Amino acid sequence: MTLTLTELPADVQDEVAATRRIVADLHAELPRWQLVVWTAGNVSQRIRCADQIGEDLFVIKPSGVSYDDLGPNQMVVCTLDGAKIDDGTPERLQPSSDTAAHAYVYSHLDWVGGVVHTHSTYATAWAARGEEIPCVLTMMGDEFGGSIPVGPFALIGDDSIGRGIVETLENSRSRAVLMQNHGPFTIGRDGRDAVKAAVMCEEVARTVHIARQLGEPIPIAQELVDSLFDRYQNVYGQPKK
Amino acid sequence: MTLTLTELPADVQDEVAATRRIVADLHAELPRWQLVVWTAGNVSQRIRCADQIGEDLFVIKPSGVSYDDLGPNQMVVCTLDGAKIDDGTPERLQPSSDTAAHAYVYSHLDWVGGVVHTHSTYATAWAARGEEIPCVLTMMGDEFGGSIPVGPFALIGDDSIGRGIVETLENSRSRAVLMQNHGPFTIGRDGRDAVKAAVMCEEVARTVHIARQLGEPIPIAQELVDSLFDRYQNVYGQPKK
Amino acid sequence: MTLTLTELPADVQDEVAATRRIVADLHAELPRWQLVVWTAGNVSQRIRCADQIGEDLFVIKPSGVSYDDLGPNQMVVCTLDGAKIDDGTPERLQPSSDTAAHAYVYSHLDWVGGVVHTHSTYATAWAARGEEIPCVLTMMGDEFGGSIPVGPFALIGDDSIGRGIVETLENSRSRAVLMQNHGPFTIGRDGRDAVKAAVMCEEVARTVHIARQLGEPIPIAQELVDSLFDRYQNVYGQPKK
Amino acid sequence: MTLTLTELPADVQDEVAATRRIVADLHAELPRWQLVVWTAGNVSQRIRCADQIGEDLFVIKPSGVSYDDLGPNQMVVCTLDGAKIDDGTPERLQPSSDTAAHAYVYSHLDWVGGVVHTHSTYATAWAARGEEIPCVLTMMGDEFGGSIPVGPFALIGDDSIGRGIVETLENSRSRAVLMQNHGPFTIGRDGRDAVKAAVMCEEVARTVHIARQLGEPIPIAQELVDSLFDRYQNVYGQPKK
Repeated sequence: MTLTLTELPADVQDEVAATRRIVADLHAELPRWQLVVWTAGNVSQRIRCADQIGEDLFVIKPSGVSYDDLGPNQMVVCTLDGAKIDDGTPERLQPSSDTAAHAYVYSHLDWVGGVVHTHSTYATAWAARGEEIPCVLTMMGDEFGGSIPVGPFALIGDDSIGRGIVETLENSRSRAVLMQNHGPFTIGRDGRDAVKAAVMCEEVARTVHIARQLGEPIPIAQELVDSLFDRYQNVYGQPKK
Repeated sequence: MTLTLTELPADVQDEVAATRRIVADLHAELPRWQLVVWTAGNVSQRIRCADQIGEDLFVIKPSGVSYDDLGPNQMVVCTLDGAKIDDGTPERLQPSSDTAAHAYVYSHLDWVGGVVHTHSTYATAWAARGEEIPCVLTMMGDEFGGSIPVGPFALIGDDSIGRGIVETLENSRSRAVLMQNHGPFTIGRDGRDAVKAAVMCEEVARTVHIARQLGEPIPIAQELVDSLFDRYQNVYGQPKK
Repeated sequence: MTLTLTELPADVQDEVAATRRIVADLHAELPRWQLVVWTAGNVSQRIRCADQIGEDLFVIKPSGVSYDDLGPNQMVVCTLDGAKIDDGTPERLQPSSDTAAHAYVYSHLDWVGGVVHTHSTYATAWAARGEEIPCVLTMMGDEFGGSIPVGPFALIGDDSIGRGIVETLENSRSRAVLMQNHGPFTIGRDGRDAVKAAVMCEEVARTVHIARQLGEPIPIAQELVDSLFDRYQNVYGQPKK
Repeated sequence: MTLTLTELPADVQDEVAATRRIVADLHAELPRWQLVVWTAGNVSQRIRCADQIGEDLFVIKPSGVSYDDLGPNQMVVCTLDGAKIDDGTPERLQPSSDTAAHAYVYSHLDWVGGVVHTHSTYATAWAARGEEIPCVLTMMGDEFGGSIPVGPFALIGDDSIGRGIVETLENSRSRAVLMQNHGPFTIGRDGRDAVKAAVMCEEVARTVHIARQLGEPIPIAQELVDSLFDRYQNVYGQPKK
């Protein structure tokens, strides 16, 4: 049975509207930080409404639409099995072709509230070699708590991409995974956190690449990485409200 | 006999005016995606008016004019033998010095509705070595269905560039060709599709270059490439109207 | 005893307000010159008010706040032991997690009026290898008077980063130091001078990296470096008022 | 004897005013094409007024001033011996520290109407190795008619830089020279032509660098280079009026 947006409880409809604005705004961060070209890349964010309607939803970019044309109204609302719901708009857009992968992640990692996929250049270059990014920068220790791992080669069309992401990240502190020959997927507490992970993933992919072009970077001992990660997760930024 | 714009049927004149706007707007995409410097690079789009006036036309950038000064009125209308038509403007601009190559492509590949030429940096670097870009990224499989081939060295001035493009692309799924020591030409169903191919060509040229700087990328088996290409051409994006 | 902004002499309060504007404006230079991503990087500037209140102060960026949201009011005022003062704002932000390092530099190098920290890509790549940048460009002789040195690996949390910066720069003409596995810190007569050093540090890190990718740059003899440095420090720019 | 602007013939004063606007506008092209950071780089243009006042003049950037603050009024007017003239402005700015080099070029190459100096990254990287850029791109044949040569190491302060530029370019078709360990100087018929040469010099420096990172580019035979150069100089662009 297909859900219909206008038949959902009013507070869930409000949450959908708010999330559409957030996800539309977050898409503007991808070209801003040069993570995408043309229509590639997508951001989604979970709506935690299982208590109200029996299941969570998420909001994601439509497929093949230019970043210039992305506003809240273009964003597509889906259930966790990756089907878009009937949102009553006259021209209902198809969700991103990566929707099944996002849905799989939300279904299998309950703490995840945001997912991002890009083909950002340097991260994708590591993915093309199937090589993890070693932790040789303090900002990698801070942000990822170690190296950024590689996930398997997987074709689009079934749940293999989603499964590859989840199986790789379950065994890692990293919020980023490099899917082989494909590109990075990142996860976070919400969409913004996953976008931050995508930005930082590309930045460390680029910096470590450049470092290695002229020699071997100096490794950081694991206990120092642990110390950086622990401090950054608990002390950095403003107090959580 | 030279065609005169004001003597063409009204609907062809309307089509010319609309195409000039489209082609002017598409030129703004070239600096936006950092494919060109100064006045280099050009986009054209075919006008399918053979039924009305016995031959198709196409619209192309004028030669050596800054991207800041390109509006619909600066765009030049040409016949498929590469001659500009009398468009009645007081200061008639000369078409791009690459016009003969565009014209040759339209004359010999009937499905092509748009052509783009740039010297985008990474694609041109592969062209300088005369080396095709191997298909090691899923987005290459999606977009080009395999490697991006190299065309022959050819001097400007006769039809050798056009011939090199057509002969190379007739034997390839790719919509991009790297002309040796020169740079990429891309083709598409219309100007926008050819611009997309130019953007994606540079992006994969850059990503595969960077991947290869630190080792060998992992090849993608041909049947997987076929599967990616087939799916992308038929499923990605919004339903065609 | 915590200082309270509103109880300071009026001219010191004016100086604080002016410095907040300057430091907010200088933060805009970091993304402009592509030295930072997301919320990374920080600028501070000293307020020389020891004669009036018995100690100097400095103004620095708050921790983990987006560059889009940084105005004068967000800037945090600290004493030279790195503690923020009570500035009477309703939502008092925590200072940058690098505040202790800035404070240490101001305490130990009296001539320094500005400090900048970034993870700018090329400088950080040299830092990841623990390799100093050799002086092979006239603009390095001009600006840094020789090579840019590497400082020790140091964890955040005590004064080891500050100490590493000071001990390295005391023995160098350079206003930039590459902290191992971490990134550059730069110092200057004021915040603007330290930002200039950060911009030039990244530019020479990038240019020398690129030069070395295809061979060995030609060294510049020390007496020529001395001549460049002396001239640039004394002749370049407009006469000091 | 120092010239005074207000005592010059009215048409020369008009020419000075027009040239100041042109040179101010051309400076905006340097950051636009990412050829400069901070205050580095400068453009000048000759005023051909020898018939009226017995000597030519040229207009150049002031020393050490931010690109944000450069308007026509900030531009400095100099004689061909590199001395600024009394232009009656209350705060007369010192000309660029590279003024002597520009003056030397105008004095010794009468056809030159514009000079540009930058430290653009890739061109400067070739200069750091003292290596000329080989002609392996059709756009290099078009624009420079062959390789881009290297000039000697020269200290600022006397006429050695100017002499190095002139002696190198007198024996070359190229309008660009890479001064060893320093950076590119370019010349042209006017300021805009020299800016174009600076933009193209950096673009070919970058493209050939990238090509060579993964192998050897294919050389272009000298007679083909000659053919490209001849055609581009005589056919490209709009008819000269």
